[in-house]
Amino acid sequence: MANEDISQLNFIGVVQSSLQRKEDCPLQGEEGAPEAWLLIKKEFMDGLDSLKVGDSIILLTWFHLADRSVLKCYPRRETNSPHVGVFATRSPDRPNPVGLHTVKILGIEPGKLKVHPLEALDGTLLIDIKPVITATEK
Amino acid sequence: MANEDISQLNFIGVVQSSLQRKEDCPLQGEEGAPEAWLLIKKEFMDGLDSLKVGDSIILLTWFHLADRSVLKCYPRRETNSPHVGVFATRSPDRPNPVGLHTVKILGIEPGKLKVHPLEALDGTLLIDIKPVITATEK
Repeated sequence: MANEDISQLNFIGVVQSSLQRKEDCPLQGEEGAPEAWLLIKKEFMDGLDSLKVGDSIILLTWFHLADRSVLKCYPRRETNSPHVGVFATRSPDRPNPVGLHTVKILGIEPGKLKVHPLEALDGTLLIDIKPVITATEK
Repeated sequence: MANEDISQLNFIGVVQSSLQRKEDCPLQGEEGAPEAWLLIKKEFMDGLDSLKVGDSIILLTWFHLADRSVLKCYPRRETNSPHVGVFATRSPDRPNPVGLHTVKILGIEPGKLKVHPLEALDGTLLIDIKPVITATEK
């Protein structure tokens, strides 16, 4: 594989959500995030087999609007808190803007999963889906 | 930003581990994985500020030796189990081979974090570090 391909993401799908603007997004899924649909690209649909309604899954997303130059920030947008390293925060603005979300599958249609709760903007790209497998992640 | 840059990972560092071969790796960190060092690239070191010994952190890694064409596999390498969709498993062979690990910081040196337990090969690339922030992830 050529060197330039190793670090290239191949997005498996996209988030369809009522969240249209960054400022509408809750900071975490547990803070009032809505249901959303995951639209999976045709070439990756076989990878969804065995997932079922009721399963808890981990989504890895790619915040396509992120500022990737950020190394220091204020935790939880609290500008009177100390300025901290970005790796000690969940800021979406970070060198590799991967979002990590634990959601429940509410519905399955061909090439589509309905999940809840998801604090990601409409159009957020989807990197991966993993099962929740340990007690520590539930 | 050019379209081809959006999906490009910018690795923040690399794993230094005694695990040298795929077959030496436990399936999960809790299954006997060793301590490892995270070597952070100079340009990302400022992002480590505020992390401290004893913190639990989530690491996102990139399995550089993965087979990215896999959509169906056997869970936990058990070939007498049914063949399932890769997104219902934690197989490292998957379209975007991102590893997800919860580890504890055992030591900090300039540009280096010592963590435990980490079931990732020596040379595995590092995408992101996030704090464990909810009871559900501890």
